[in-house]
Amino acid sequence: MDSLTLYIGNKNYSSWSFRPWLAMTAAGIPFEEDLIPFDFPAGNPRFKEISPTGRVPVLHHGNLRVWESLAIIEYAAEIFPDHPVWPESAKDRAVARSISMEMLSGFRALRNACPMNMRRSKGRIKLLDGVAGDVERISSIWKECLDRSGGPFLFGGFSAADAMFAPVVNRFEIYELVEEPQVLAYMTAVKNHSAWLKWQEAALAETWIVPEDEA
Amino acid sequence: MDSLTLYIGNKNYSSWSFRPWLAMTAAGIPFEEDLIPFDFPAGNPRFKEISPTGRVPVLHHGNLRVWESLAIIEYAAEIFPDHPVWPESAKDRAVARSISMEMLSGFRALRNACPMNMRRSKGRIKLLDGVAGDVERISSIWKECLDRSGGPFLFGGFSAADAMFAPVVNRFEIYELVEEPQVLAYMTAVKNHSAWLKWQEAALAETWIVPEDEA
Ligand SMILES: N[C@@H](CCC(=O)N[C@@H](CS)C(=O)NCC(=O)O)C(=O)O
Ligand SMILES: N[C@@H](CCC(=O)N[C@@H](CS)C(=O)NCC(=O)O)C(=O)O
Repeated sequence: MDSLTLYIGNKNYSSWSFRPWLAMTAAGIPFEEDLIPFDFPAGNPRFKEISPTGRVPVLHHGNLRVWESLAIIEYAAEIFPDHPVWPESAKDRAVARSISMEMLSGFRALRNACPMNMRRSKGRIKLLDGVAGDVERISSIWKECLDRSGGPFLFGGFSAADAMFAPVVNRFEIYELVEEPQVLAYMTAVKNHSAWLKWQEAALAETWIVPEDEA
Repeated sequence: MDSLTLYIGNKNYSSWSFRPWLAMTAAGIPFEEDLIPFDFPAGNPRFKEISPTGRVPVLHHGNLRVWESLAIIEYAAEIFPDHPVWPESAKDRAVARSISMEMLSGFRALRNACPMNMRRSKGRIKLLDGVAGDVERISSIWKECLDRSGGPFLFGGFSAADAMFAPVVNRFEIYELVEEPQVLAYMTAVKNHSAWLKWQEAALAETWIVPEDEA
């Protein structure tokens, strides 16, 4: 089989790249990584060469191009069926996909106001309309899943749903958006996962600065 | 097995409801339908009772609730594996999911400016920034898929990807947004599908008016 190549943006900032990278790494799926930094004012021209949308992440597998973070995860899960990408039961998988797609299609207020930034030290910022509602809805999704599964992750073991919310774990932490013990304990579990730590180490070593993501 | 109940909004307007309804109907998956009209100024209070997000569509299966249009489609495909929801080859499925998720997460300019409206007669409206780019990107997705598959649908036979773009077929038609023959031929194929015709008939018979969706 051809090897998989995942094209990603800067590890410090690229929240959408982080999701499939984390899901695939945590599930032990082998892939090559090609990091294309956001280091041109008008965007890096390589993005257009490698991706049908001009955005990352994108996965190349032979001639095939798969884009959209969650579609990459679904493809990886399909071609590596023995790797635990999604929860085991069909009902858990259905809820895992519901919350993953709610993340993919929504929470724009939070995403726009509070960029992911792995290097940033903790500190509150002024929050615009809609952010509080997003924080509340995400917290309630997490608490409901954790109550049902018993933790430490949303569906017990680490799954693609945790990966889809991982950039939110960073945002909740650095902008100090949540205080509930159950939510903080979940965030600690995610931040201690070996795949998170591996990404974080590389992010901290990056030196590129993207001013509009420095809130 | 418990039967599936799909809760939807008005057939004339509810673009997100239309997608799983069409995918499941076209694939011959049996389900009950419960239509909750948007007929209160502050939204119909039943939405909050039946749906974790307060939005439709939502699928009930026994105690399980599945929300987000595309997560509903994935669940239906999983529990009815012999029904042709997604294209047959893993590569086609990967592209079908990529474009379906691009639809789910994007094209906001088009979605906001040009509401789906099955009853509306044809006529242009003034278009805001971003709509032309969305129309161009969607047309290019369709043409690339049709060139590869040979049509009449994006991946040959009708699949979930066609269902995800079906509300766009209505928008392109009623606001007269496209002229290319290949794109118009695809739209005609979708509009002649028996599942589309069944939804359309019910939409035309509705009498509710939602003023903000009358562009
Ligand atoms: N919905 C897409 C979002 C992808 C996205 O917005 N990627 C950003 C980086 S995190 C990007 O490539 N931005 C560069 C640009 O838009 O030019 C996904 O899930 O993959
Ligand atoms: N991303 C969601 C969108 C669902 C959505 O926005 N549904 C609309 C109807 S088409 C709705 O329920 N609106 C009522 C409300 O927001 O109160 C999906 O794919 O299902």
